Amino acid sequence: MSMDLPIGFRFAGVRGGLKKAAEKKDLTLIVSETPAVAAGVYTQNLVVAAPVVLCRSKTPSDNIRAVVVNSGNANACTGVRGTQDALSMCDLTAAALSKHFPGQSISGQNILVMSTGVIGRFLPMDKVQAGIELATRQLSSGQAAFLDASDGILTTDKGRKVTTRSCQLGGRNVRIAGMAKGAGMIGPNMATMLCCVVTDAPLSTSQAQRLLQMAADRSFNNISVEGHTSTNDTMVLLANGQAGGAVLNVQEETEFAKHLLAMCIELAKQIPADGEGATHLIAVKVTWANSEADARKIAYEVARSNLVKCAILGADPNWGRIVSAVGYAGVPLDASKISLKVNGISLFLLGEPVDFDAPVASAAIRDQFETQIDLSVGDGPGACTHWTSDLTHEYVQFNSEYTT
Amino acid sequence: MSMDLPIGFRFAGVRGGLKKAAEKKDLTLIVSETPAVAAGVYTQNLVVAAPVVLCRSKTPSDNIRAVVVNSGNANACTGVRGTQDALSMCDLTAAALSKHFPGQSISGQNILVMSTGVIGRFLPMDKVQAGIELATRQLSSGQAAFLDASDGILTTDKGRKVTTRSCQLGGRNVRIAGMAKGAGMIGPNMATMLCCVVTDAPLSTSQAQRLLQMAADRSFNNISVEGHTSTNDTMVLLANGQAGGAVLNVQEETEFAKHLLAMCIELAKQIPADGEGATHLIAVKVTWANSEADARKIAYEVARSNLVKCAILGADPNWGRIVSAVGYAGVPLDASKISLKVNGISLFLLGEPVDFDAPVASAAIRDQFETQIDLSVGDGPGACTHWTSDLTHEYVQFNSEYTT
Repeated sequence: MSMDLPIGFRFAGVRGGLKKAAEKKDLTLIVSETPAVAAGVYTQNLVVAAPVVLCRSKTPSDNIRAVVVNSGNANACTGVRGTQDALSMCDLTAAALSKHFPGQSISGQNILVMSTGVIGRFLPMDKVQAGIELATRQLSSGQAAFLDASDGILTTDKGRKVTTRSCQLGGRNVRIAGMAKGAGMIGPNMATMLCCVVTDAPLSTSQAQRLLQMAADRSFNNISVEGHTSTNDTMVLLANGQAGGAVLNVQEETEFAKHLLAMCIELAKQIPADGEGATHLIAVKVTWANSEADARKIAYEVARSNLVKCAILGADPNWGRIVSAVGYAGVPLDASKISLKVNGISLFLLGEPVDFDAPVASAAIRDQFETQIDLSVGDGPGACTHWTSDLTHEYVQFNSEYTT
Repeated sequence: MSMDLPIGFRFAGVRGGLKKAAEKKDLTLIVSETPAVAAGVYTQNLVVAAPVVLCRSKTPSDNIRAVVVNSGNANACTGVRGTQDALSMCDLTAAALSKHFPGQSISGQNILVMSTGVIGRFLPMDKVQAGIELATRQLSSGQAAFLDASDGILTTDKGRKVTTRSCQLGGRNVRIAGMAKGAGMIGPNMATMLCCVVTDAPLSTSQAQRLLQMAADRSFNNISVEGHTSTNDTMVLLANGQAGGAVLNVQEETEFAKHLLAMCIELAKQIPADGEGATHLIAVKVTWANSEADARKIAYEVARSNLVKCAILGADPNWGRIVSAVGYAGVPLDASKISLKVNGISLFLLGEPVDFDAPVASAAIRDQFETQIDLSVGDGPGACTHWTSDLTHEYVQFNSEYTT
């Protein structure tokens, strides 16, 4: 099936040599042929890598030409050299693109940068530079190039994470494409979530930032593997307007937002589904909370509980662990209003355990990759779904192997 | 070595038959021969077991005669029957003690109750009653009875957790003794922390409550295994004044507080040290935070990180995982003021990685049961130490085994 990619973008993913494995791509370019509007959403960690500081200062913008991403090294060095290296990645990309698009004036200010991989080591800038130049020569608007680019941002992911979509907005066809990476981790590495969404829809900068923040809040901000917030998390949206016409009106924006959110959820869910050692994707859906913020806190607390995650690994319909996690989420609650279903089977109803068929409930968990935890916690309007993975022996194995 | 137990207390720990294993004690009585001042500190979970609701309503008090504890079943049922069963445990204990101390008027109101064990099943009240009656007949002020009592509150603990201490306060000898349980967990069970401290010091009720809260905040409130707050956590202090003299004055209270805190830390540390599958006790000490509350948040976030816990299991001096956990603790921070030592070895200094000898740092973790993580995070007065365990294969094994 061929992908309907946004027009006016070019992609490349190449091997610059940052990763050890000889066949692995580690340098990605995503380029707009014309200046694009760009929005960004970043890690909430206060200890942040240099590329995050740099991108945060540049978005929202109405004049971004490219995103350069390296994998294999997170450039998670605070201090002078990390910052210089991130700046250099932008300048090197601008220089290469200026040659590639003769007559166009492209500076480092027009470039966004992301890094992911090992923490605490300096970037091998010679390899980064060679990668940027190679990638620039291979830029293409085709599907193969898009997939190469999506491979170049991966680290310990088992597979690429991409999605595309198109829709009719005010008589014109608009296309959106996204790629993401995360959230495996090995040795001294750390998971990072990166995501880049490109569209040919015409958006204003404030529109782009608002749309991206909204979509991130209900997708990438609602996933976890073990709740350890990376220093590098970055999500950007580039909109180059090549679909034509005026900036989206309110009605068109609402329609676009629906598609963007659906795509982001699709991409985001792939991250815990690919969590290291994961045998289950767990969706924790909280409804009837006093507010969306309350629902979010409860869903995250349940999703973060090692006891809940181990129970799902063991196909144990353990309502006690789930309901008690609700109780310490730091949200005002009436315990007599809590009800719980797991994979559609009622385990706990209005504060009292239900006499359910335990072997059937266990089999329903064991036999499906996705476990649906439905919690109804009161009578308010708040709802939220958080996706996570189960906690397995393989997770402990991966993350306790000491490799210098 | 014989223990110097507080005078005027009697203890018993017997088998009532709530636990499956035939040799296991599961019913404990701790009795004061005279009305005692009592203080309590309880779980902050909003979903709480019936005994917690009941004890919370009774403390602080100046007229408590006994604590009755059963293990093997947490009576973690909300609703009418759980409450009735908790009330019955108090009434049955009062009736048995009234016979045991002829002429004394003891009612259920004078009794505190704790339960720990399986969640979501009703108490077998016939076994509980038999246990209470048997325990009452065996009440003794001796060391063997104290140790029996401390065994009767255990569930999946590998060993008993007790401590005693005596000190001179205003010319009189004052004795304090404590017992605790936690925090292993199996099958459908849930960890619970229980602790009972008894002293013959004369304390007012407000003094007792203040002293206990202060000690709990810096001991039992600073430990975790996986951060899943139980529905049953209970800590009580009984002070019967049998050491004689007036209620402690300010100076004596300060001295008493030091001893109480030291004892509580000694007991509390035994819980993560005995965490299921634990191969390391991890002490996370945060200093120079803006406030004690900030230090507490940071220490807990580091202690709760599965990545940090896996790194310690693997003897990996992984400063990136530790420092990044500091960054998402939700506390204002200047990353350039963060410094980190692990077991005395400097890994990160004022925002920059240190060029340390990795094999030496790794060996220092591998070869010691206790790992000391020292984080200096700014220039404020706030400090806190949190104790936790590492995350191991055995933890996942225990907590994913599905046993109906």
